[in-house]
Amino acid sequence: MTEGSDDIQALIAQIARLPGLGPRSARRVVLALIRRRTGQMAQLAQLMATVAEHSRECIRCGNIGESDLCPICADPRRANGELCVVEDVADLWALERGRAFRGRYHVLGGTLSALDEVGPDQLGIPRLIGRVAEEGISEVILALNATVEGQTTAHYIAEALEGTGVTVTGLAQGVPIGGELDYLDDGTISAALRARRRL
Amino acid sequence: MTEGSDDIQALIAQIARLPGLGPRSARRVVLALIRRRTGQMAQLAQLMATVAEHSRECIRCGNIGESDLCPICADPRRANGELCVVEDVADLWALERGRAFRGRYHVLGGTLSALDEVGPDQLGIPRLIGRVAEEGISEVILALNATVEGQTTAHYIAEALEGTGVTVTGLAQGVPIGGELDYLDDGTISAALRARRRL
Ligand SMILES: [Zn+2]
Ligand SMILES: [Zn+2]
Repeated sequence: MTEGSDDIQALIAQIARLPGLGPRSARRVVLALIRRRTGQMAQLAQLMATVAEHSRECIRCGNIGESDLCPICADPRRANGELCVVEDVADLWALERGRAFRGRYHVLGGTLSALDEVGPDQLGIPRLIGRVAEEGISEVILALNATVEGQTTAHYIAEALEGTGVTVTGLAQGVPIGGELDYLDDGTISAALRARRRL
Repeated sequence: MTEGSDDIQALIAQIARLPGLGPRSARRVVLALIRRRTGQMAQLAQLMATVAEHSRECIRCGNIGESDLCPICADPRRANGELCVVEDVADLWALERGRAFRGRYHVLGGTLSALDEVGPDQLGIPRLIGRVAEEGISEVILALNATVEGQTTAHYIAEALEGTGVTVTGLAQGVPIGGELDYLDDGTISAALRARRRL
């Protein structure tokens, strides 16, 4: 046992497995938390326990909130006939920070991938098509990453919605080629949304 | 409130303040924890609460453990007359991973810095000199970073120990110029320790 105690070592190992971290950054994080004598680690632990207990996926859109319906799905003012399809909750958050979109979302949770055996059902695309009819959607905005996978998925959804009468749009140029939404600044993402084009 | 709930947003803000993280990586970490339906966040919260409650600084060496004396200071086999001085607990951990050193440590908690008003007292250097006498130390190994600040501090300590009869050594070449111990692989640090030289 090198790092202080078995618990400290277990904590480092758990933190090292989080995305973007590794053993070295995990050690630095744990030391910083132990060193700050303000009870910061206890506070963080408390907050994590609360979030773990209360967070759940919205049964309608896949966003994360504290009830069966997320705040956006629960808000009748967001039922404006626009439905924005995103790969990930992080992308939804990025769009919300941009404050340019006032409709509702549909979180796919990924992209189509033959290799990883992710098909339309895994992404909830049949459910998306159902929502378009049930919720009286007039425009579906495909706000997918400008990657090969994102654009393949966007084309698949656009074709699946053909003949339903709904307008299908994608984000305008402004999203750089190969760019991932969650990396863009909030202004770029809002500009791309406002200049969205018909697919 | 963009990110799911006020608690999620507060959690992201706290995590974003940790060393090496920022808002974007904090959002990714929190989403990953919420998404893993294995109760990983609750587990992590529990572990953090335990570590926060039990961790404390060793009253003798400044290492982190769960009692007044850390496991190294509590282990009589580590009283071999060698005392290794490090800047930080992370450096102590790096040396322990290397398994080359079997003596005890003294954690300074930083380096001398006129700018930041860190003098010998803040670093516990008088206490270090006291330990050399009380604990019958025959060799003090200054395992400080190969930075200007680390080497200035090493020279200060070497001079302060002059006339006490103790042998003062530093890590051998092998630590690259400007290199920080905690970034080195475990093999390099062990080799540098074994080839340590008299200052
Ligand atoms: Zn929702
Ligand atoms: Zn100790």
